Amino acid sequence: MNNFNFYSPTEFVFGKDREVECGDYVIKHGGSKVLLHYGSSSAKKSGLLDRVQKSLQNKGIPFVELGGVQPNPHDSLVYKGIELCRKENVDFILAIGGGSAIDSAKAIAMGVPYDGDFWDFYSGKSPQKALPVGTILTIAAAGSEGSGDSVITKEDGMLKRGAGGDCIRPKFSILNPQLTCTLPAYQTACGATDIMAHIFERYFTNTKEVEVTDRLCEGLLLTMIKETPRVIADPQNYDARANIMWAGMVAHNNIVGVGRDQDWNSHGIEHELSALYDCAHGAGLAVIMPAWMEYVMNHDVMRFAQVATRVWGCQMNFANPEVTAKEGIRRFRQFLNSIGMPINFEQLGAKESDIPALVKSFGIGDGKTGGFVHLKAKDVENIYKIAAHAQL
Amino acid sequence: MNNFNFYSPTEFVFGKDREVECGDYVIKHGGSKVLLHYGSSSAKKSGLLDRVQKSLQNKGIPFVELGGVQPNPHDSLVYKGIELCRKENVDFILAIGGGSAIDSAKAIAMGVPYDGDFWDFYSGKSPQKALPVGTILTIAAAGSEGSGDSVITKEDGMLKRGAGGDCIRPKFSILNPQLTCTLPAYQTACGATDIMAHIFERYFTNTKEVEVTDRLCEGLLLTMIKETPRVIADPQNYDARANIMWAGMVAHNNIVGVGRDQDWNSHGIEHELSALYDCAHGAGLAVIMPAWMEYVMNHDVMRFAQVATRVWGCQMNFANPEVTAKEGIRRFRQFLNSIGMPINFEQLGAKESDIPALVKSFGIGDGKTGGFVHLKAKDVENIYKIAAHAQL
Repeated sequence: MNNFNFYSPTEFVFGKDREVECGDYVIKHGGSKVLLHYGSSSAKKSGLLDRVQKSLQNKGIPFVELGGVQPNPHDSLVYKGIELCRKENVDFILAIGGGSAIDSAKAIAMGVPYDGDFWDFYSGKSPQKALPVGTILTIAAAGSEGSGDSVITKEDGMLKRGAGGDCIRPKFSILNPQLTCTLPAYQTACGATDIMAHIFERYFTNTKEVEVTDRLCEGLLLTMIKETPRVIADPQNYDARANIMWAGMVAHNNIVGVGRDQDWNSHGIEHELSALYDCAHGAGLAVIMPAWMEYVMNHDVMRFAQVATRVWGCQMNFANPEVTAKEGIRRFRQFLNSIGMPINFEQLGAKESDIPALVKSFGIGDGKTGGFVHLKAKDVENIYKIAAHAQL
Repeated sequence: MNNFNFYSPTEFVFGKDREVECGDYVIKHGGSKVLLHYGSSSAKKSGLLDRVQKSLQNKGIPFVELGGVQPNPHDSLVYKGIELCRKENVDFILAIGGGSAIDSAKAIAMGVPYDGDFWDFYSGKSPQKALPVGTILTIAAAGSEGSGDSVITKEDGMLKRGAGGDCIRPKFSILNPQLTCTLPAYQTACGATDIMAHIFERYFTNTKEVEVTDRLCEGLLLTMIKETPRVIADPQNYDARANIMWAGMVAHNNIVGVGRDQDWNSHGIEHELSALYDCAHGAGLAVIMPAWMEYVMNHDVMRFAQVATRVWGCQMNFANPEVTAKEGIRRFRQFLNSIGMPINFEQLGAKESDIPALVKSFGIGDGKTGGFVHLKAKDVENIYKIAAHAQL
């Protein structure tokens, strides 16, 4: 096991109707003037925005609003948010939505106290301070409610890049599974796929002797395999929604990923798809992740056999572990298909002829990625090709 | 799943040699004068205390010392610590040791800013503030390094009681598995048993639909079952020690126990044994926990069958789940025996004739406990009797 630090100071406020307490938590965590940051009109239509505003009003907390966050949130709105916060002397940002609203809020939070261009933090610079952020989560997926990460797309060139630091971990996150019960099946499945990807990208490691995090990752995957089909079949199933929502946070606040090298290449390879086609991140992952697994499997067959037996319920083929390893990947792709996810380029709406452009935009040139298997541009191309043609 | 809040703001600093950084973390978390609080002479002999003192000196942080913490830490030393901190204007307490040193440090931390008797917090009062506490852990067991709990024994009457609150969660905890490599096998096994008990006492619940925390608990148990025999056989096995150490924290910071009713009766029933005989808490748990399981099993046979199949590798007996449930308990007791734990009163050094006194001291009178099964005094007596005579 590697040395590590783990720090997750977010206060999680979980359960039915908890969003009406948001005013209390803003005060508890030092906010006196709030930016409400959200996406589509659904927060308005559902009455959620109303309840949040009332909670703030009841506590005498003034607020300004900035809606319009898109999936794969763009830098242009971040610049608007920074300007608004400075002008209005906002000292707390409350994001309402999924990963996009939260990631956009984190970007604004870093940008407000920073003299330069906030994009610096998405180009490798470490943020040292940020306005405090709170979240009210409406989609179980990105794990941004408990993480120190943010992903933003720069409109000039459609570059999708990440930033990270403890200072952007939310002060509090309100997780009410009821708020996710109105999500359409497709978005629900995209979220579940993203959660599973966050687990797998921690699971596939070259670090030896990491039984505790292996077992915790496997426990989360087993949870997702049980609960996801239940919410697809019955969107109003509160308990299944609740299990997925907590699994989504635990999967990405890194408590199950400490002490081990991780592999985020599937996320990186997918980001090019959602940047180019504006497809859902989870749908892109459903296409990429099993393809990546097939491509790198021979690097550590026994690790793939382990997940196949422990998680996918395969019988171990002791004479030929590769058979078991492959069967695990096959079951993963079948599972994704069963919850309505695309499994190849055609189903996703991507074009094989774009692969050269995707590889170029991935941007490693003659270099290599890090991770479980260090990939060159040619490897990335091969993974896109497997993904393009994948079948059940 | 129940509504819940989860808040674990402790910064965990994990890995080889990390204790030499303690001065940095004291400063980071606002300390300017430190009480070093520890137990036996082993911290001195091993050179650990030296390294800690040097780290503080290098950062120009003055400190005073209070050693002498005993297992099942006593109130008398807490009073001394409170007096010393007030006299010396200490503003940060650094505990070096296992659960006893940390729990004693937490008690002092609550007592210093409090006008009344610190024992109030062990008699039901909620603490509102405390001096900040940091820890350098030397035993993987109690989980106190990541919890908001503390257990202290009042010498007058040998009452062992608990206190809890977010304000006593450590600001940072340094977990270096190397420091546990010198622990004798018996103490190592006691620690492992305590960790497994912390998981089981969350696992046995009447709350339905808690798949995610069930699976996380099971993952931790599987880790303990793999790693504990390895450290008993090879005390210097760093990686096995590391997996146990992280499992011990995760088992008790409550991330695997949220959203569900819990059952802490085994801990309570054991506390009377360690208070009366001053035996190791883990050894007492090894005697009590399987006895409690046998006594309450019929309350939810399928939950016991679940843990038997998922954790203990039993084949499910679909015609008669009770057989599977019992087999799981049998394997647990066998496991405890295999790592050198006592499994009955004789092996623990307890006397059956003391059972009436133990029940009386447990102190529920004509009432009932809470938990998975609500126990009356007669039930507690029956559990002690099963524990007294247990065999493999």
